[in-house]
Amino acid sequence: MNPHLEDLIAFLKIPSISTDPAYKEEVARAARWVADYLEGSGFFAELVPTPGHPIVYAERRVGRDRPTVLVYGHYDVQPPDPVELWQTPPFEPAIRDGRIYARGASDDKGQVMIHLAALRELGDALSVNVKLVIEGEEEIGSKHLFSFIEENRARLAADAVLVSDTAMFARGLPTLTYGLRGLSYLEVRLRGGRSDLHSGVHGGAVPNAAIAAARMIAALKTPEGWVKIPGFYDRVQPIEPEERAMWRSLPFDEAAYRKEIGVNRLEGEPGYSVLERRWARPTLDVNGLSSGWTGPGSKTVIPAEAMFKFSMRLVPDQDPDEISALAERYVRAITPEGYESEIRVYQGARPVVVDRKSPPMRVAAKALEEAFGQAPVFVREGGSIPIVPAFMEALGAPVVLMGFGLPDDNLHAPNEKFELENFEKGIAAAKAFYRLFAEEGKTQR
Amino acid sequence: MNPHLEDLIAFLKIPSISTDPAYKEEVARAARWVADYLEGSGFFAELVPTPGHPIVYAERRVGRDRPTVLVYGHYDVQPPDPVELWQTPPFEPAIRDGRIYARGASDDKGQVMIHLAALRELGDALSVNVKLVIEGEEEIGSKHLFSFIEENRARLAADAVLVSDTAMFARGLPTLTYGLRGLSYLEVRLRGGRSDLHSGVHGGAVPNAAIAAARMIAALKTPEGWVKIPGFYDRVQPIEPEERAMWRSLPFDEAAYRKEIGVNRLEGEPGYSVLERRWARPTLDVNGLSSGWTGPGSKTVIPAEAMFKFSMRLVPDQDPDEISALAERYVRAITPEGYESEIRVYQGARPVVVDRKSPPMRVAAKALEEAFGQAPVFVREGGSIPIVPAFMEALGAPVVLMGFGLPDDNLHAPNEKFELENFEKGIAAAKAFYRLFAEEGKTQR
Repeated sequence: MNPHLEDLIAFLKIPSISTDPAYKEEVARAARWVADYLEGSGFFAELVPTPGHPIVYAERRVGRDRPTVLVYGHYDVQPPDPVELWQTPPFEPAIRDGRIYARGASDDKGQVMIHLAALRELGDALSVNVKLVIEGEEEIGSKHLFSFIEENRARLAADAVLVSDTAMFARGLPTLTYGLRGLSYLEVRLRGGRSDLHSGVHGGAVPNAAIAAARMIAALKTPEGWVKIPGFYDRVQPIEPEERAMWRSLPFDEAAYRKEIGVNRLEGEPGYSVLERRWARPTLDVNGLSSGWTGPGSKTVIPAEAMFKFSMRLVPDQDPDEISALAERYVRAITPEGYESEIRVYQGARPVVVDRKSPPMRVAAKALEEAFGQAPVFVREGGSIPIVPAFMEALGAPVVLMGFGLPDDNLHAPNEKFELENFEKGIAAAKAFYRLFAEEGKTQR
Repeated sequence: MNPHLEDLIAFLKIPSISTDPAYKEEVARAARWVADYLEGSGFFAELVPTPGHPIVYAERRVGRDRPTVLVYGHYDVQPPDPVELWQTPPFEPAIRDGRIYARGASDDKGQVMIHLAALRELGDALSVNVKLVIEGEEEIGSKHLFSFIEENRARLAADAVLVSDTAMFARGLPTLTYGLRGLSYLEVRLRGGRSDLHSGVHGGAVPNAAIAAARMIAALKTPEGWVKIPGFYDRVQPIEPEERAMWRSLPFDEAAYRKEIGVNRLEGEPGYSVLERRWARPTLDVNGLSSGWTGPGSKTVIPAEAMFKFSMRLVPDQDPDEISALAERYVRAITPEGYESEIRVYQGARPVVVDRKSPPMRVAAKALEEAFGQAPVFVREGGSIPIVPAFMEALGAPVVLMGFGLPDDNLHAPNEKFELENFEKGIAAAKAFYRLFAEEGKTQR
């Protein structure tokens, strides 16, 4: 058994659910656990309080002349609901078939543990300066981390930012992620009258907010998947031919993907492959929708109000603030006569594509090849990690996204798991990265 | 204070929400309350069990040679949601400005109470045979009352069916209703995949049930209000010129109506007045809609499922079974590729128009004139009372719809209320009806 598995189990047992105020103490306990572990490895570690959950900051300096790596990860987790769909309880880690099942196993405690274990194994052999920022609010938008980075630019200065919070493209295929989509998220409350009305007494003569909202939603996107917000595509960078070629050579089977995620049919913008649609094209989805009577039975109301939430995934060089403003203007324009739209814009995220030939990226590729016996593939990811562009800008350092999850790890879903094989190889890859970056760093100065 | 107000308050305090299984005991309690009250007035009363909620059946016979009136009403109520919009709690009746506020105040407990009070006041002076059928499932389609009527034709035999579950056209204007719209009600569960997906990882390539449902809803009706279901208008009878003239002379002001019900704008089928659209034209409304994440915050899911409920108000000679079948077929036809629609058809209601010159109708007109000092107006109503056509057919008796609600009573909405003036005059009118019908009945035999 991997000697670090016991520690991982202890870490996973802490229900550090950041979104639920009832778990505030548990979130704090997870932060202390991480700080204590790093202190036990010879690091200076502190808990930085925020108005929300604390940030764990730790560092170990081995020499002014050595390059510095900043490691980012998060110790908070998603809620485990629906709990009844878990085979074993979400906070009682269970090992089955070479996998560890628990909330946070892959996202992101298992991957944070890879670095904690690698750094402990290296011990005094560590040959780079290492700083760690392990936050407790990733699952709720990293709210207080942005200002922490802004206010601590000098202290956080690094030659590379290393993030392990992504997935490998497939089992056994080491992967470096060099792009993330951004996000704009809006909520619309549409109102056509003061209160719900009886559909018998008034039906045929008055506005129906559910129908009006449906018409508005239908106007957000063409049936083919083209977003109808004027200006939406203005800053979208085309996909490079080299990227297209690289992705075409990945082992990707549409039918298997469709089956794995359980949909009857794939859809989307014509002229793009499924991977291109998910990684490098912007899109729009309705995330939530409600109006009128949604409980059991046949209540005969004409809804006065409807609510819908929709979000757009963005690609370079779309700007979330600009896109949110365009979307807000468009929503107002398509709000039918006699209705009012109250619009809320949530915190967005900038899309990012990093240089896949930067020095730390080359080091990461070598480290992965050493650990997995195979050169990594280069992919983008459709999701957003809002803090990544913030690190890039504040520190001016190249980012490396070296993740060890798998696409079927059930992130944010019941039965989240992490492969023990990836845990072990991840530790080996992390150790190799720290060792190789010390050499690479020297040559760069 | 009206001596019956205390009883009305006790009746209104019982949260007899028939659609919600959690309130089953409270519904039963309301039934017992009605039966006990009638027993206290010298009636024989029983609770007839059904697979759903019990029917209160009561009778008092004063002589074989006397005419018989069957009174119909219901003791169940709509859910009070959204509860936060009530000024005072829905099941704690409050009196303000000559009105009583509570769920069921007007629909239909206040109106049932009018008859209970009138019959108690008449006491041994009662000169007609009276039968009462007060059901507990009106708000959920009167499911078990239909078979009860079918199986008890002889026992329920009457010279007139008197229903107080409608509204007066305006304050101070006594009203007899001679037409009701019918109803078809469907619920659609649309599914595009096995479970919700992460909008970052998969957005742009997979079905979104919320968007698909919105497109389907947008295809149910034109923006002008024309229902797009093929065959929907085939059996619709045109409005008689006499009716149009009669309704044109009613004191109806569109701006005042709009303000009263609190909508910014009236809409509907071109070529018809607002009253015609509400009373004598069929229509379609979405009553409820839900998909994805509807709680607070910005959850980034792609919904696998969406639910919508929609209903159609019908006019003679549309048949609810036929219309539901047409609607079901149309929903399947507009279900997009890659999705499955699971359709539930609720119990419908037939539209009805009754003879506005029948003997009991003439008696009702006299009783109203006596109580209000003014002859009644004749109107139709846009709502449905599914059991009315059933009574008409099973008993072969003329129906009188003598209601004491007001258009701004907020039926099925927050802050439902009933005017205490109408409560008092209603009791006077009911007493007059029972007295006058005894005479009219004698001359009719």
